[in-house]
Amino acid sequence: MEEITGKWLIETVYPDLAVMLRVQQVLFSGRTEYQQVEVLESDLYGRSLVLDGKTQSTERDEHIYHESLVHPAMLFHSDPKSVFIGGGGEGGTLREALSHNTVERAVMIDLDQQVVELCREYLPDHHKGSFDDARVELLHRDARAYLGEAGEQFDVMVMDLVDPMEGGPAYLLYTRQYYEIAKARLREGGLLVTQSGPAGLLSHQECFTTINRTLLATFAHCVGYQVHVPAFQTLWGFNIASDSPIPDLAAAEVDRLLLERLGQELAFYDGESHLSMFNLPKFLRKGIAEETRINLDEAPVFMV
Amino acid sequence: MEEITGKWLIETVYPDLAVMLRVQQVLFSGRTEYQQVEVLESDLYGRSLVLDGKTQSTERDEHIYHESLVHPAMLFHSDPKSVFIGGGGEGGTLREALSHNTVERAVMIDLDQQVVELCREYLPDHHKGSFDDARVELLHRDARAYLGEAGEQFDVMVMDLVDPMEGGPAYLLYTRQYYEIAKARLREGGLLVTQSGPAGLLSHQECFTTINRTLLATFAHCVGYQVHVPAFQTLWGFNIASDSPIPDLAAAEVDRLLLERLGQELAFYDGESHLSMFNLPKFLRKGIAEETRINLDEAPVFMV
Amino acid sequence: MEEITGKWLIETVYPDLAVMLRVQQVLFSGRTEYQQVEVLESDLYGRSLVLDGKTQSTERDEHIYHESLVHPAMLFHSDPKSVFIGGGGEGGTLREALSHNTVERAVMIDLDQQVVELCREYLPDHHKGSFDDARVELLHRDARAYLGEAGEQFDVMVMDLVDPMEGGPAYLLYTRQYYEIAKARLREGGLLVTQSGPAGLLSHQECFTTINRTLLATFAHCVGYQVHVPAFQTLWGFNIASDSPIPDLAAAEVDRLLLERLGQELAFYDGESHLSMFNLPKFLRKGIAEETRINLDEAPVFMV
Amino acid sequence: MEEITGKWLIETVYPDLAVMLRVQQVLFSGRTEYQQVEVLESDLYGRSLVLDGKTQSTERDEHIYHESLVHPAMLFHSDPKSVFIGGGGEGGTLREALSHNTVERAVMIDLDQQVVELCREYLPDHHKGSFDDARVELLHRDARAYLGEAGEQFDVMVMDLVDPMEGGPAYLLYTRQYYEIAKARLREGGLLVTQSGPAGLLSHQECFTTINRTLLATFAHCVGYQVHVPAFQTLWGFNIASDSPIPDLAAAEVDRLLLERLGQELAFYDGESHLSMFNLPKFLRKGIAEETRINLDEAPVFMV
Repeated sequence: MEEITGKWLIETVYPDLAVMLRVQQVLFSGRTEYQQVEVLESDLYGRSLVLDGKTQSTERDEHIYHESLVHPAMLFHSDPKSVFIGGGGEGGTLREALSHNTVERAVMIDLDQQVVELCREYLPDHHKGSFDDARVELLHRDARAYLGEAGEQFDVMVMDLVDPMEGGPAYLLYTRQYYEIAKARLREGGLLVTQSGPAGLLSHQECFTTINRTLLATFAHCVGYQVHVPAFQTLWGFNIASDSPIPDLAAAEVDRLLLERLGQELAFYDGESHLSMFNLPKFLRKGIAEETRINLDEAPVFMV
Repeated sequence: MEEITGKWLIETVYPDLAVMLRVQQVLFSGRTEYQQVEVLESDLYGRSLVLDGKTQSTERDEHIYHESLVHPAMLFHSDPKSVFIGGGGEGGTLREALSHNTVERAVMIDLDQQVVELCREYLPDHHKGSFDDARVELLHRDARAYLGEAGEQFDVMVMDLVDPMEGGPAYLLYTRQYYEIAKARLREGGLLVTQSGPAGLLSHQECFTTINRTLLATFAHCVGYQVHVPAFQTLWGFNIASDSPIPDLAAAEVDRLLLERLGQELAFYDGESHLSMFNLPKFLRKGIAEETRINLDEAPVFMV
Repeated sequence: MEEITGKWLIETVYPDLAVMLRVQQVLFSGRTEYQQVEVLESDLYGRSLVLDGKTQSTERDEHIYHESLVHPAMLFHSDPKSVFIGGGGEGGTLREALSHNTVERAVMIDLDQQVVELCREYLPDHHKGSFDDARVELLHRDARAYLGEAGEQFDVMVMDLVDPMEGGPAYLLYTRQYYEIAKARLREGGLLVTQSGPAGLLSHQECFTTINRTLLATFAHCVGYQVHVPAFQTLWGFNIASDSPIPDLAAAEVDRLLLERLGQELAFYDGESHLSMFNLPKFLRKGIAEETRINLDEAPVFMV
Repeated sequence: MEEITGKWLIETVYPDLAVMLRVQQVLFSGRTEYQQVEVLESDLYGRSLVLDGKTQSTERDEHIYHESLVHPAMLFHSDPKSVFIGGGGEGGTLREALSHNTVERAVMIDLDQQVVELCREYLPDHHKGSFDDARVELLHRDARAYLGEAGEQFDVMVMDLVDPMEGGPAYLLYTRQYYEIAKARLREGGLLVTQSGPAGLLSHQECFTTINRTLLATFAHCVGYQVHVPAFQTLWGFNIASDSPIPDLAAAEVDRLLLERLGQELAFYDGESHLSMFNLPKFLRKGIAEETRINLDEAPVFMV
């Protein structure tokens, strides 16, 4: 029983189910202007970033999440030169975007400057110095306000945001109005990808299917996909949208493009992983097909 | 805080991580000759069978597990007439096997008669009456001893066993010696499939990769696959082995065969789900490729 | 970490603090007409009765609770011949009351017949056969309705009820109106004692001090006392009320009376234990002195 | 269920029972040379000091512990001029000792300078500036080595140490050899008091009774007492030893002495609280009477 004594992070996964993680060290704990932040160290996950009690990413498995979020949309574009990143404070999304040799410019906007600074300090294995890349412009302001201004356009937009929780800072970055604003900043042939919450049998209707439908109300095409992220305890969903057709890449083509663009293999994402991600379990296809809700500014669908 | 008051099942998923499930009702709790058994009712999962503290299956998601365990091997066989099931006390594996109109006989051996009787009583939505099917012979004895005797041969053998834990009742049903015994009971062209434990990034080396290698030491061919089972909190692994080549079915072929054999669609498994299961994440392919351990009676690899 | 796997009862003690008890066996779990009931077996406490998620008593320490509830009021009476018990389904209160050789009659009323029957079956070390004592009349109906009828009077009334929770079955058995009804059934010189909820530094204002004040609004005298009950995780409070003066017994007098009445020593309660119970920590004296709330039918004070 | 999400401190109280405390803020978390240290903020307890996962004291109830530890021994001495404090990093013990107007000198030795500095910074309501009192000498070294040197003698020695855990830093400060060393530093008529671990029904044999017997093997007199400390979840034990008789103070005498020495009332400790502490529950008297173990350097009794 001594084993149970200690510091634990408990996190709800579904109603009536929570996960207990033993924490070895609390490297940082405090409130920024926007949220409660913890940087934790556990034997299981290494260092984790936790915002308002929810694990955002961990050293041990962040590569699955960040590679899955970034690379499919990048490969679906024939020549992604400029990338916009909304959120993504840990720097892992930025790191993956910059790994494409086509990229000449990346604009990253994360509202919470303190979180980004904490990540720079405490999560070097997440960002791997990407914040210092000369191609990067880093801004700390509201992404929606920024995109709403006239300005440069991007080939790929990556929304790496916290989930659309009621009262949370991000739910207005998942609505049709937001996607219309973002779309105006996409170059022709551009794609937008957003993390889309849990996509397991018991959770895919929390926000994944709604985000898919909301993007389809704004863009001509939208493709959902999923991957298992251990620290999220379930399948995790993403949606890619574009007004141009989204190609159906064969495994070999994915592998060829990655080698051409990155010059090396990735830890998780490759051609066969791509197939496991884009061939959806039947319940996800059914969930998308049957979903009728759309996120609107005036009527958002919050995660439960 | 009142919400936390109540009955909880806590279950370890990885070292330093456990899952807490709120339980509404304990329908049965007791010890059989072989193990501690609980039949629990939760709002999240419906009824669950828990053996020695480990959730075996739940009403809400057992179809993912049982369909994934049974159907691929059945479809890989051109005409499965006889099926052997090792374990599978809930009756879900039996139910799925019997759904193939080719099946003329199913022998199911579960050591623990009391567990099977409890499942018959408490889990009607698992077995759906399959124990009463005239094609079934149900035995309560040691599967290894049974198979070790000369006797009838089977087209498909399904090992639906508890994990190979140290001191547990099943670890001798995961060794090369066991697979050799089983293989002698396979007809020509026959396949053996076994549940193979967790297959997530952090857990696939617990037993999944070893079982794959052990089967490959016994059979000419072995294919691993995985699926996310919510109640297991992670990806779950399976391995199919045969001395005959294991076909690479296209999605459309899976759908066609299912319709031909079952006459209806399944809840989870279909052609596209099949692709998501058999296209493995890179870490699983790497884990299998790099695995060198083999389970032997005299040197088993136990789950941690 | 394997140690954490299993069945746990989690119970709130204060806001933001809960206790996790590992349960070895669930001997009974189900709902009666009135409440959710579990009979649990733990290595720590032996068998416990749990009603609506709250531990009522355990084999290991019920003697502290039941002896403390019953004997002081019995000793404060010079010749307690008849005892009324409200609640007390486990039979421990009855057992202690019957141990006084002055007692000729005990009427016990517990609303929930099923709970009493479960206790008779599963908690023999609680009741020790007391339900079969010829002096006992056991009724299953509402104690307040029973007392409200004209009828026999008692020397000592013992209220062994669940806490006054909002929506719970017992809060109307803690009000001034109830105490007035009960008082009409007390013989001259009679005393009423009631369990009165937690009495720790952080919890004594939940209901202990209010019950004291409510009794003082009904009776001429009221004395509060407390004892540490391990399974309740904190000090537990009781209040004794009477229209006759409540004596201040010396330790030796307590010991003498116990020997005279019971013919043997008790496991917990004796003269020195009595002093530790009736000499109150300063915060309890202050809490009682400063309490202004009274429980009324129309305005009860619920436990938080 | 959202309520369960967050940071929790889980602490074992008995085998198979643990307490979960919701933590609002982690003010400090790190390792010193000797131990893991956390300063936590919870709504329930305010700020707490946690060493190696065990709560040492909290703002909300530390007065119960520190007043109970210090004042009885101080009052049992007719004129305590000099006080030795072993441990006591929070400064609460020092604060209480200095409140006696007889005290001219206090030597406090806490091995872990970093802990003391953290307490000075984070726990101002514990020490209330007592470290800056001109009568205080504060040392950071091993208390046993210090006492083993020839040197000044004290009227009262207060051992405010972490529990005698196997592998912990303090178990050699609970042995007969240690008490002999300490005793050599007591003036004639002097008293030594030590915190003595849990004293509940289920836990008093972990170390309370052994410490009592060990002191009695060294001193002519030893008196044990107890008090309920909410943050420790159970009764807490103390033992006072002396070669001079330990007086049996009446409540009024305690109150008179406190007023004379302190000039004001305390929050918890007074005459009636004293009686509740020194009148022991029967199981403690029995536990002490039946205890045969003695802590020796070469054979210490560790807490379980």
